[in-house]
Amino acid sequence: PKNFFLIAGPCVVESEANVFEIGAHLAAVCKRLSIPLVLKASYRKANRTSASSFTGHGDTFGLGVLQKAGVHFGLPVTTDIHSEAEADAAAGYVDILQIPAFLCRQTELLNAAARTGKIVNVKKGQFLSGPSMKFAADKIRAAGNDKVILTERGTTFGYQDLVVDYRNIPWMQESGAPVVMDVTHSLQQPNQAGGVTGGNPQLIGTIAKAAIAAGANGLFIETHPDPACALSDGANMLKLDLLEGLLEQLVRLRAAVVGG
Amino acid sequence: PKNFFLIAGPCVVESEANVFEIGAHLAAVCKRLSIPLVLKASYRKANRTSASSFTGHGDTFGLGVLQKAGVHFGLPVTTDIHSEAEADAAAGYVDILQIPAFLCRQTELLNAAARTGKIVNVKKGQFLSGPSMKFAADKIRAAGNDKVILTERGTTFGYQDLVVDYRNIPWMQESGAPVVMDVTHSLQQPNQAGGVTGGNPQLIGTIAKAAIAAGANGLFIETHPDPACALSDGANMLKLDLLEGLLEQLVRLRAAVVGG
Amino acid sequence: PKNFFLIAGPCVVESEANVFEIGAHLAAVCKRLSIPLVLKASYRKANRTSASSFTGHGDTFGLGVLQKAGVHFGLPVTTDIHSEAEADAAAGYVDILQIPAFLCRQTELLNAAARTGKIVNVKKGQFLSGPSMKFAADKIRAAGNDKVILTERGTTFGYQDLVVDYRNIPWMQESGAPVVMDVTHSLQQPNQAGGVTGGNPQLIGTIAKAAIAAGANGLFIETHPDPACALSDGANMLKLDLLEGLLEQLVRLRAAVVGG
Amino acid sequence: PKNFFLIAGPCVVESEANVFEIGAHLAAVCKRLSIPLVLKASYRKANRTSASSFTGHGDTFGLGVLQKAGVHFGLPVTTDIHSEAEADAAAGYVDILQIPAFLCRQTELLNAAARTGKIVNVKKGQFLSGPSMKFAADKIRAAGNDKVILTERGTTFGYQDLVVDYRNIPWMQESGAPVVMDVTHSLQQPNQAGGVTGGNPQLIGTIAKAAIAAGANGLFIETHPDPACALSDGANMLKLDLLEGLLEQLVRLRAAVVGG
Repeated sequence: PKNFFLIAGPCVVESEANVFEIGAHLAAVCKRLSIPLVLKASYRKANRTSASSFTGHGDTFGLGVLQKAGVHFGLPVTTDIHSEAEADAAAGYVDILQIPAFLCRQTELLNAAARTGKIVNVKKGQFLSGPSMKFAADKIRAAGNDKVILTERGTTFGYQDLVVDYRNIPWMQESGAPVVMDVTHSLQQPNQAGGVTGGNPQLIGTIAKAAIAAGANGLFIETHPDPACALSDGANMLKLDLLEGLLEQLVRLRAAVVGG
Repeated sequence: PKNFFLIAGPCVVESEANVFEIGAHLAAVCKRLSIPLVLKASYRKANRTSASSFTGHGDTFGLGVLQKAGVHFGLPVTTDIHSEAEADAAAGYVDILQIPAFLCRQTELLNAAARTGKIVNVKKGQFLSGPSMKFAADKIRAAGNDKVILTERGTTFGYQDLVVDYRNIPWMQESGAPVVMDVTHSLQQPNQAGGVTGGNPQLIGTIAKAAIAAGANGLFIETHPDPACALSDGANMLKLDLLEGLLEQLVRLRAAVVGG
Repeated sequence: PKNFFLIAGPCVVESEANVFEIGAHLAAVCKRLSIPLVLKASYRKANRTSASSFTGHGDTFGLGVLQKAGVHFGLPVTTDIHSEAEADAAAGYVDILQIPAFLCRQTELLNAAARTGKIVNVKKGQFLSGPSMKFAADKIRAAGNDKVILTERGTTFGYQDLVVDYRNIPWMQESGAPVVMDVTHSLQQPNQAGGVTGGNPQLIGTIAKAAIAAGANGLFIETHPDPACALSDGANMLKLDLLEGLLEQLVRLRAAVVGG
Repeated sequence: PKNFFLIAGPCVVESEANVFEIGAHLAAVCKRLSIPLVLKASYRKANRTSASSFTGHGDTFGLGVLQKAGVHFGLPVTTDIHSEAEADAAAGYVDILQIPAFLCRQTELLNAAARTGKIVNVKKGQFLSGPSMKFAADKIRAAGNDKVILTERGTTFGYQDLVVDYRNIPWMQESGAPVVMDVTHSLQQPNQAGGVTGGNPQLIGTIAKAAIAAGANGLFIETHPDPACALSDGANMLKLDLLEGLLEQLVRLRAAVVGG
């Protein structure tokens, strides 16, 4: 397809109402703009900086809400997993299994995700180069699954900042996998003194536009009707009612990139 | 103006014929594509890694060739300077004085450049953040000259690589100055064992397209009919006959960015 | 104790004979130099870059060899774990559970390790600052276990290099935990094109001496009689017969650091 | 000589009384501890972040004070220079010419410093690797002067931090030049929003001790009786009355390093 695809939704399943509100808005906007959409939410946050942060409402609840929303809106859905056991459990509910950046080198997790037969989306570790991600793609293919997506989400740049290296888009595409730019997490400001990751949401447009220009196949954007009240990652989520205007720009840009 | 502007030319004045060959090609292409063009070449290379590298044919020669080409093609011209004395000398020949990245914090050089009344283009040091470049712009304005351009050219990322942080484009624009992406030097691979800086010319398009998408006002691209034989920076210059195709794409992208 | 302690051994359990050969040598040298010793080996390599690298001989075999060597030499032993299930299994065999750097943010793994009641040694992620490691220590303490060690092993510095930031030694000590310098993995050269991590073993002495001077409580050094033939991490292990001379220097340095 | 040498003094010549107070204290302490001492102060600050920062009292004044103090205390003296003209001027007053880190690649400045016949101390640029500094040493030697010192002062690590890579000590020593650790500037926190560089003076001891352990030939420490009132670099200077205790520790450490 000529257009880019979009993986979007709230950071975490806060409630069924919240997922359905966001899903309805996203489905309508993406249909109008001919953007293939995947609905995303985490059902469990396993790697919060601090043990006192919110981690989810229980696995079955979150996965069930996500599946129900996918059926309701006719959309594929995705979530992130953190162990071999979660791979099998989540595969009963979602279409794409996302491997978190910190875990992209855990061979057994990649194998378990691959064996489910679902699409596997591996996020590039903050400590890895783009070209090295071909070894992650190779592990999944060696396990008999060639449905791999690779996602850029920034690289360690000093302690309290990430930098997006756009060279990683063509470099990861050399693996043969489509490449997604995770706009939300690329803007994280890690290692803050208070144990809560910071952000720069006013730069969401810059990161997304540069990604489309550099040839990204998809974008990942977390969004919420009221980021300031979100239970996780509020510092970087895009306010839901700002998404449509941004996507219009990006569709126009994409058309210019692919030519014709 | 709606289009981006282009600063382009060979890395160093190799000969009058070479500058005129490149200038003629650039002038024709940019006229056709309505891209405002500034012709660029260095007349002296003052900071080569190794003392045995080529540094130029003599100041008067190089400056004279550049001025002559500017007059011939009806183009503004630019070159880089390295000392207060050079600021005054070069100002007699060129329209824009470029401050090298390594020297962007040298107050007296900035002041001397500012006092010539010429446009001053300060390249961001590899060790500076985008927001810090406002202090460079402020120094020039405090010296009575508000014709400032700021140029992104990559940031230190380990020892043998640079990374382009596209957040620096909006961050530097907050200073009020137009921002240029130096595509050529952003791709340098510094600190190579042999004392000659390396490069990645196949990524020129990626760097340039992301810059236009992120809102850069101008691009800086060194070009040469035969980069492999160039006397400096051959590892990163774009082959002259590849420029037109790239610029066509960039013009289309720019139109999508500015909308309308 | 006034002296530093040493965690040492081969990268992976290659065979019982190999572990006993290394253990015998280490035990004799450390006894002579009054260095408290912990014998270390991995029984499973879960995060090799490439799926074709050696990952171990089976969990029970490796853990059994390690336990047997600990009993034989009268030494505490340690190994690294990668999942909640491994935490419980390994705790039956070893005295210290080591959390790999990539996994230092996985809350459930930290909790599972903590609940075993064993000492938990968390390696600082290449993407984390020293001060942020207090959140890892806090997670373990919140799970009811205050026997925490934190280990420095280098921080992402461009794609193909790590840098050791010695400020992390006092910064991590502010958490109240003893701090170990992992000399071996600090020298890794990640993201190499061939999928095999490189190294700089000639710098082992520099890294270790600076750590003792900066006040590290312990050192972690992988060693092998013939690193070139080792089944993992051969690029960075210290040749076994070079260890004694280095430790003599380090003991002298430690005495000068603690004074008296 | 078996001991390390020390380059120390205030950041900038504030007044004759200030330089003599600091010089008297340093001379007495270093004599007692058998540390070869070089008295340092800048007479002009040419690269302050912001144009509104203090830059000095005039060249002749500062150089004269420094020379007078050197004669009075029987000490060699050093200052930093920023142009070819300054090289010749300062050489009439001081024994060692220091090349600032930002300027370490300016070939004509290195040549001018070399031609004075004075010792030339080149600080490693924040954007250079240790091994690359051999090209700076080679430039000076090629100009007929083999009295070269190289100084480590930290490397760009994100935008607002520097990291000291202790591998650079042996790597720069491979050039044949003695290597100094600039403890003061290694702790800078550049690119602060307010345009004034920050610091971490409580880490001075950690940086200095690790440097001696890693084999540094000399240390560079700026010191002031009242850093909070200093006219430049107050954020990183060591309080004068804390220096003696630190040097005692360092002398003990050095003895342990060189053995015997």
